[in-house]
Amino acid sequence: MRNLLTMNALSVLEIEEIIGQAQDFAAGEGWFPDRPTYVANLFFEPSTRTKSSFEMAERKLGLQVIPFDAGTSSVLKGETLYDTARTLEAIGVNALVIRHEQDAYFAELAGRLNIAVINAGDGCGHHPTQSLLDLMTIKQEFGGFNGIKVAIIGDIRHSRVARSNADALKRLGANVVFSGPPEWFDERIGNGAYEDMDTAVKTADVVMLLRIQHERHAQNHHRTNADYLERFGLTKAREKSMKPRAIIMHPAPINRGVEIDSDLVECRRARIFKQMENGVYIRMAVLKRSLEQAKGGTVYENNHQKWSIAR
Amino acid sequence: MRNLLTMNALSVLEIEEIIGQAQDFAAGEGWFPDRPTYVANLFFEPSTRTKSSFEMAERKLGLQVIPFDAGTSSVLKGETLYDTARTLEAIGVNALVIRHEQDAYFAELAGRLNIAVINAGDGCGHHPTQSLLDLMTIKQEFGGFNGIKVAIIGDIRHSRVARSNADALKRLGANVVFSGPPEWFDERIGNGAYEDMDTAVKTADVVMLLRIQHERHAQNHHRTNADYLERFGLTKAREKSMKPRAIIMHPAPINRGVEIDSDLVECRRARIFKQMENGVYIRMAVLKRSLEQAKGGTVYENNHQKWSIAR
Amino acid sequence: MRNLLTMNALSVLEIEEIIGQAQDFAAGEGWFPDRPTYVANLFFEPSTRTKSSFEMAERKLGLQVIPFDAGTSSVLKGETLYDTARTLEAIGVNALVIRHEQDAYFAELAGRLNIAVINAGDGCGHHPTQSLLDLMTIKQEFGGFNGIKVAIIGDIRHSRVARSNADALKRLGANVVFSGPPEWFDERIGNGAYEDMDTAVKTADVVMLLRIQHERHAQNHHRTNADYLERFGLTKAREKSMKPRAIIMHPAPINRGVEIDSDLVECRRARIFKQMENGVYIRMAVLKRSLEQAKGGTVYENNHQKWSIAR
Repeated sequence: MRNLLTMNALSVLEIEEIIGQAQDFAAGEGWFPDRPTYVANLFFEPSTRTKSSFEMAERKLGLQVIPFDAGTSSVLKGETLYDTARTLEAIGVNALVIRHEQDAYFAELAGRLNIAVINAGDGCGHHPTQSLLDLMTIKQEFGGFNGIKVAIIGDIRHSRVARSNADALKRLGANVVFSGPPEWFDERIGNGAYEDMDTAVKTADVVMLLRIQHERHAQNHHRTNADYLERFGLTKAREKSMKPRAIIMHPAPINRGVEIDSDLVECRRARIFKQMENGVYIRMAVLKRSLEQAKGGTVYENNHQKWSIAR
Repeated sequence: MRNLLTMNALSVLEIEEIIGQAQDFAAGEGWFPDRPTYVANLFFEPSTRTKSSFEMAERKLGLQVIPFDAGTSSVLKGETLYDTARTLEAIGVNALVIRHEQDAYFAELAGRLNIAVINAGDGCGHHPTQSLLDLMTIKQEFGGFNGIKVAIIGDIRHSRVARSNADALKRLGANVVFSGPPEWFDERIGNGAYEDMDTAVKTADVVMLLRIQHERHAQNHHRTNADYLERFGLTKAREKSMKPRAIIMHPAPINRGVEIDSDLVECRRARIFKQMENGVYIRMAVLKRSLEQAKGGTVYENNHQKWSIAR
Repeated sequence: MRNLLTMNALSVLEIEEIIGQAQDFAAGEGWFPDRPTYVANLFFEPSTRTKSSFEMAERKLGLQVIPFDAGTSSVLKGETLYDTARTLEAIGVNALVIRHEQDAYFAELAGRLNIAVINAGDGCGHHPTQSLLDLMTIKQEFGGFNGIKVAIIGDIRHSRVARSNADALKRLGANVVFSGPPEWFDERIGNGAYEDMDTAVKTADVVMLLRIQHERHAQNHHRTNADYLERFGLTKAREKSMKPRAIIMHPAPINRGVEIDSDLVECRRARIFKQMENGVYIRMAVLKRSLEQAKGGTVYENNHQKWSIAR
């Protein structure tokens, strides 16, 4: 069992290995487990892209996917996440992909399961496969990270992606700056200073926009969409000021006309749908990594199966 | 990419080809794409039969189905249908089957995707695979359409099926009449006159009942069910007046005791479950048609993938 | 077609055969149908374990699973269960696994379908695959049932499992007693007397705890959780009084700290997750039994398919 819970837990070498494997998959390489392998995707929050991306990755690896619908599961009857996970282990699932609204939900599972857990997003915490696909997209573009300037812009405080990415980019040799509404910047995030919007866009190699999570802080978001776009979004005017080879990234779903002018979503610089494409390969690499490790065999110390006339 | 959006877009020859292919599938013929092929079913409205039928058709063709749950998708976060569709394209889905409550939802997608879209129902608009399976059922029974009289009865104004069917039947050489509550008939539908219920049932080769869509016009449906059945439904007495070889069709789900006496649902004349059986073969034929076309290779002009040390 | 609807309908020999086949599957035996076979799981009530377990069993047998989501199905449009089931039969599904909140929902289907129905729980009625996996777990432990004392404890009146199990255990030669809140015991259940909690736990070979179904009788459950545990749950003190080889069972989901002290859920005696593991093999055996029978060929008397120029 080899979990993937946070970016912090990955060394620079491991990050490079995962991206390298993902690139091999993108180039057409195949890998299949040597016996029937079962995986379940536990999504306790809405998701199109991440869930579909994992579903695709799983099928490309020939895995069998056991459907799990949080909305009709026994969680409604008050079952703990651990008991749900342990149940899926008991019926033979080899890896769990979990998205959950609670920060660090996986602390409850750590060391108590014999199967792999892959974190597909925990509350305002981490989203390592998103970070990895972002890094893969940057590496494809620039060949590496040394000296690349990445401007992470927007709802930094509530973004799973912002913090994981900033830390990993820093370790890989990139320069990180933050921009967007100053009240959403938090110096404790570290790994990068705040820059005003126009400077950040003008000087970055990568303009990494974040999604405004309306569902997370509805009340203090008093600006109109048009006003936000003008002040902190990527307008057509700002796009024109970007460096010749600079690219635009966004984790999606996109609020068109808020974080970015709708006409720029698929412009020459945009790598937004490219990121999604890369996400499948990253998830294939992450699943392979977890399942290869698991191959050693699972020992259920806890189950005392007998088939004897013992009395 | 070869979409199937409306019946109007299909020539008589194309209709005959699809029905012929479906009949070959019904006779046991197989067809499989020559490489792994992925499809997603986006159902934004409740459905048992159409969705299950596509799911079955997809599996019979050996396609991989990427699950999509509209109720937990990013559409809840305000994502546009285009961005959702484009996302699924980016992760490698080869065809989308879409049901959506908005009339002509596909206008938003037309010409903007490199993968096929198959319309599984748009609002009060079209439902081409339902029309095709109706036509297949009639052809199986009568060998063709020339001179066949089809009476389309019931909630014509709100029926996707009524209008597509009337037009296609007309083009194929059949005679179409409409019946049911006169206030639900609309002369602008064209392709057939209104006949009173008893005459229509007595003289038709095909009595095609439509479902009363309680969910669409609750308020102006003031009649009781028993009253509706007596005045505009297929009662046992009316069934007795039908021509010897005439058949009964209904797109289902059936409101038993409203459009049709419950005892007639599986009577000798009824082809209701036969229609559902045919639906699988029609959908196989439609999917094959879309996927064969797609085989030429998808070019993503929009993605500038690089893997170079460019700077 | 060979349904599995209730335990009562199974002879002792049939029970032993199913358990034997399940044990063969547990030991690594495989079985696959000799042609593509389709199954649908219709769960009208929340479930993790039973649904996932069937999904796993189906995949281990190489079956194709047609997804069915009760929450977005035509049942919402008022379709009868029979029409839904008949629809799935018409599109080619070979077996239906159904959980439904209505007691004996299957009476509506009996004799009207040509495909197998497997009952995955009906209201407060039956849950035969749960009973079978319980029996398998006991047999694994003790080699058989003769003279084994099983104490069924808790919410007997509302438990599907309690009654099926008591009857089957009795027929297989075991002794059954009931315990828990006396007002939840009902003498009409038969097959076993009531014992006070401490005696039952101390003298049983199998302590079979039932789940308190908060969702079924919220109002008359006035006790606090801690109070319930102390009076009628398996506390650590009671566990210490158990016979040396005695085991603990629970159908799950578990209300930790109510029916059982949370620390005992995975203790040396607990077979709770072992039961879940066995459930997959039992369901494989039950599916095989239904599908082998079905192999004779389905005849649709009701469908008059023709492909002729008949008029």
